Amino acid sequence: METVSENACFGGVQGVYTHASKACACDMTFGLFLPAEAKDGPVPVLWYLSGLTCTHENAMTKAAAQGWAAEQGIALVFPDTSPRGDGVANDDAYDLGQGAGFYVNATQDPWAPHFQMWDYIADELPRVLTANFSIDEERQAITGHSMGGHGALTLAMSLPGRFTSVSAFAPISNPTASDWGRKQFAAYLGDDESQWAAHDASLLMRERGFDGPVLVDTGTNDQFLDLLRPEALAAACAERRQHATLRMQPGYDHSYFFISTFMEDHVAFHAEALYAK
Amino acid sequence: METVSENACFGGVQGVYTHASKACACDMTFGLFLPAEAKDGPVPVLWYLSGLTCTHENAMTKAAAQGWAAEQGIALVFPDTSPRGDGVANDDAYDLGQGAGFYVNATQDPWAPHFQMWDYIADELPRVLTANFSIDEERQAITGHSMGGHGALTLAMSLPGRFTSVSAFAPISNPTASDWGRKQFAAYLGDDESQWAAHDASLLMRERGFDGPVLVDTGTNDQFLDLLRPEALAAACAERRQHATLRMQPGYDHSYFFISTFMEDHVAFHAEALYAK
Repeated sequence: METVSENACFGGVQGVYTHASKACACDMTFGLFLPAEAKDGPVPVLWYLSGLTCTHENAMTKAAAQGWAAEQGIALVFPDTSPRGDGVANDDAYDLGQGAGFYVNATQDPWAPHFQMWDYIADELPRVLTANFSIDEERQAITGHSMGGHGALTLAMSLPGRFTSVSAFAPISNPTASDWGRKQFAAYLGDDESQWAAHDASLLMRERGFDGPVLVDTGTNDQFLDLLRPEALAAACAERRQHATLRMQPGYDHSYFFISTFMEDHVAFHAEALYAK
Repeated sequence: METVSENACFGGVQGVYTHASKACACDMTFGLFLPAEAKDGPVPVLWYLSGLTCTHENAMTKAAAQGWAAEQGIALVFPDTSPRGDGVANDDAYDLGQGAGFYVNATQDPWAPHFQMWDYIADELPRVLTANFSIDEERQAITGHSMGGHGALTLAMSLPGRFTSVSAFAPISNPTASDWGRKQFAAYLGDDESQWAAHDASLLMRERGFDGPVLVDTGTNDQFLDLLRPEALAAACAERRQHATLRMQPGYDHSYFFISTFMEDHVAFHAEALYAK
């Protein structure tokens, strides 16, 4: 593992690190904020999964999360959204290939050799974090934005016991019924739609739910509302009787101005669950 | 004036606007955060002047200032750092020409036709703001980073009565004795160093001071400390008996991770002065 940068930030350290990923068969870069408390022992961690076109950097610089995490003594991890590099398959579209891993393990060519983002986030990166940093693997929570909200919700429901709490900002909530989903699942997972269901938050919610609290914010002026389909997740949560708070925020759009506005709420929400454990 | 974008943000609006500038003889772009209170009447405004290489956008997306401004009911204005465009003079160096206006009125060619950033910030943009937005021109405060900290300090001391309070993050504090200053002043203002003194915060502090409180934060690990010369400003403030708080912050560098860490303090500092008026 190589240190790309470390900056003092809210009494802690905002670092960027690169490591050789086995899952993705390429070098992967991630951001990690460690609060001051990490010097004294392992701290809880909140995962932040980013959206389409993002790298590890967007949320790290624009989500204004570190101040709230510092206040709560929580680490933040900002993974990249896909494998990258010259030898990695790509597509001219912004929503397929590099920057658009969709948090699945690709089974189809040309994606399968590198696009194993599910394994990377679920298995490999957690081990890298706990091996190298003062992170308490027993206290993890997860959030994300858009495609990353999809990732957060699907990982949380598919790995029972891993995360105390899950939240999302404008998540892609029902990708099997959206152009943000169908195109990518067909490319990465193939045409057999039965393979897609494991990666649809609304279907997972209906089928199994989440053993912990759920918080989702979506803006009423989000320019991608038709692709996000918050109504599908809302219906599934209600049907499931899931412990959940789903908020439509008046006037807000899909940008980091929306995310930063509600970040305090999300960090506090996760802190309550993490420290209750 | 043209609206480039408007995003809901912390209950207010983060806008970006373009207008034809007479001072700079080109189109100029600025960011403006208006808190919810602006709907009910004019609100106080805090100017944020950015540093070398920045546009209106850097602080707007990375300084995490809007949340604190919203809490205080204060507007934030984020001007660009220079004139820009195909017809505007430039230099290959990052620290001269476009992105490096240094908040002076250039008298030398090829800069003089467009590089009139002092007049733009001191005269033209304030009139654009008060003519188009719910801004209280009687309650203005100013801050900035690096080159923008230099701009904030020199404007505040040179326009008595304009600003209630001035603060800066890692300001270029003594440009007449720094390679961040001598090169640019020679290019923009000519070789007569007597013309430079009006744009040196340490010299201005010694000569006239500021009729209000001053707050300056600089990181002890700032990679540009030798160019910033905080010691010159500290000595001048002490000699002047200026009402000032100058803090060296252990471990922090020159980045927006440093700025965002201390933004809450700076906004609160200005709010106290703005609301006391």
